[in-house]
Amino acid sequence: MDYTGAMTITIDDIQQAHRRIEPYIHCTPVIQSRALNEIIGCELFFKAENLQKIGAFKARGACNAIVSMDKASLQQGVITHSSGNHGAALAWAAALKNSPCTVVMPSNAPEVKKAAVAGYGATIELCQPTMAAREDTVTKLIEQQGLQLVHPYDSDVIIAGQGTAALEMVKQIDQPVDIVMAPIGGGGLLGGTAISVKALSSAQVIGAEPEQANDAWLGFNRGSRLAEFTPDTIADGLRATVGVRNFNVIRDSVDNILLCSEARIVEAMRLIWTRLKVIVEPSCAVPLAAIMDQPEQFQGKRVAIILTGGNVDLDALPW
Amino acid sequence: MDYTGAMTITIDDIQQAHRRIEPYIHCTPVIQSRALNEIIGCELFFKAENLQKIGAFKARGACNAIVSMDKASLQQGVITHSSGNHGAALAWAAALKNSPCTVVMPSNAPEVKKAAVAGYGATIELCQPTMAAREDTVTKLIEQQGLQLVHPYDSDVIIAGQGTAALEMVKQIDQPVDIVMAPIGGGGLLGGTAISVKALSSAQVIGAEPEQANDAWLGFNRGSRLAEFTPDTIADGLRATVGVRNFNVIRDSVDNILLCSEARIVEAMRLIWTRLKVIVEPSCAVPLAAIMDQPEQFQGKRVAIILTGGNVDLDALPW
Repeated sequence: MDYTGAMTITIDDIQQAHRRIEPYIHCTPVIQSRALNEIIGCELFFKAENLQKIGAFKARGACNAIVSMDKASLQQGVITHSSGNHGAALAWAAALKNSPCTVVMPSNAPEVKKAAVAGYGATIELCQPTMAAREDTVTKLIEQQGLQLVHPYDSDVIIAGQGTAALEMVKQIDQPVDIVMAPIGGGGLLGGTAISVKALSSAQVIGAEPEQANDAWLGFNRGSRLAEFTPDTIADGLRATVGVRNFNVIRDSVDNILLCSEARIVEAMRLIWTRLKVIVEPSCAVPLAAIMDQPEQFQGKRVAIILTGGNVDLDALPW
Repeated sequence: MDYTGAMTITIDDIQQAHRRIEPYIHCTPVIQSRALNEIIGCELFFKAENLQKIGAFKARGACNAIVSMDKASLQQGVITHSSGNHGAALAWAAALKNSPCTVVMPSNAPEVKKAAVAGYGATIELCQPTMAAREDTVTKLIEQQGLQLVHPYDSDVIIAGQGTAALEMVKQIDQPVDIVMAPIGGGGLLGGTAISVKALSSAQVIGAEPEQANDAWLGFNRGSRLAEFTPDTIADGLRATVGVRNFNVIRDSVDNILLCSEARIVEAMRLIWTRLKVIVEPSCAVPLAAIMDQPEQFQGKRVAIILTGGNVDLDALPW
């Protein structure tokens, strides 16, 4: 894995990625609720990537990786590690091009996500729920089988793909917004979002992270990335440690990172379910939870939030 | 209450209603899932009225009733009985015109629906969960306070308003569908839907009812409406007995009524949640459940279903 390299992704890369993946993905709607706006005290716009292919924005990056790949690599097969949505996304994208796909998943990944990966025809390899175990397992399988790695976030092609959600969103909202927010797992979504938003608007870009998975926040505030970190949050999509490329983009382009409590994540998730009438994962609720935990700076503002995914285990809801 | 009168509602009434209520309601999207189509074996289109104002199609009829009403009646105040969504809809619509609103609700109505009615500023009067008790309480309050009744379904203005959902849907779907389905509670939605669909297309119109709330099915098959009936179904929005006007429209314009089991309603509801990623009430799942209980006649067909509402008590989910 090439973990070096300066920030090289531009808005042109994201626009090219968009043209490349457009035939395969949905242009998801931006949804609103007047009642929710009144409760929170600002005008909220939600880019509903829970309605994206495979139920999450991860379809964008994975599709961009696959459709950018040469024929020989596709024939040899692709591999990734993922707590869930990126695995399903790569399995789905690989199937578009008939490429064999292996997904290394932590043993505590939700059943619904394992089922989705298997449903797209990929091979699942389970490992311990640490980043080290994930990467060791991937490295071993690459050595054994000559597979092509599609990293879930620490990759230019993935960051560019994820940035296409904000690219669409900026065009979909009539008047400029003041703030754009996305949650931070590995940082692929926030990184791509920051590049798109900063190139196309004057909005602030704010990342949101659970207090119990605050490695990006710690790194952002001390100026250097944390290499080792064990997150422990209900937001299962955010249980990754921010990547090297991702950290660099975030450090250079993001205005701030805000935290939120676990209880607030559940409260915000429930508000989205009851007011917007859409199914979202706990990870989706993290930006709204961060607003609710520090409301002052958002009062009266126009705030756009990317809802990341809707793949929830209905038998393990947090209420 | 005027419970007599022949079928007098035409497509013109529905088109006029649509022009009247258009400034206040959402033109809700029609949503699809390829994965769900593969599971069910037909091409399904869902008109997402769970994303409508107040979270249900009932906003349409109530709004049509309120904006059609003279000033003196609005000032005196309006009243209705409802297991939930029509009550919230009338409370919301009355508030648009500053009209005082009273809602008689059965004591077993979901808490979330009571809260919604109260949230729009209406007065709630609880009664026993039978149609007789609802109507007695309404009659008493009309005598005492001179309120104007807005019946939840047995009313031309309500049926015309509810028919606007299908009016939009027919225009939103590019190619003609083979079958349009809606669930049956009081019959306002199915009645209005049948008038719209039969005037604008050659599609079949099929109603769907829980086996445990099958008064419309019994009446449809014997040729006369059941006056007394006590439904017992998880689909709380369908716990009304079909109305007189509604029965006449359904008898004259609907092609068939199909039943489904309670277990299938839960299964279909869960499929909609997991595949379409939207929150729907059990009532919404009744047409899909009816398809799943008798799949033969739907195989390979294009079927449009109206999702009626998304007001669910998240603390009382059926799984």
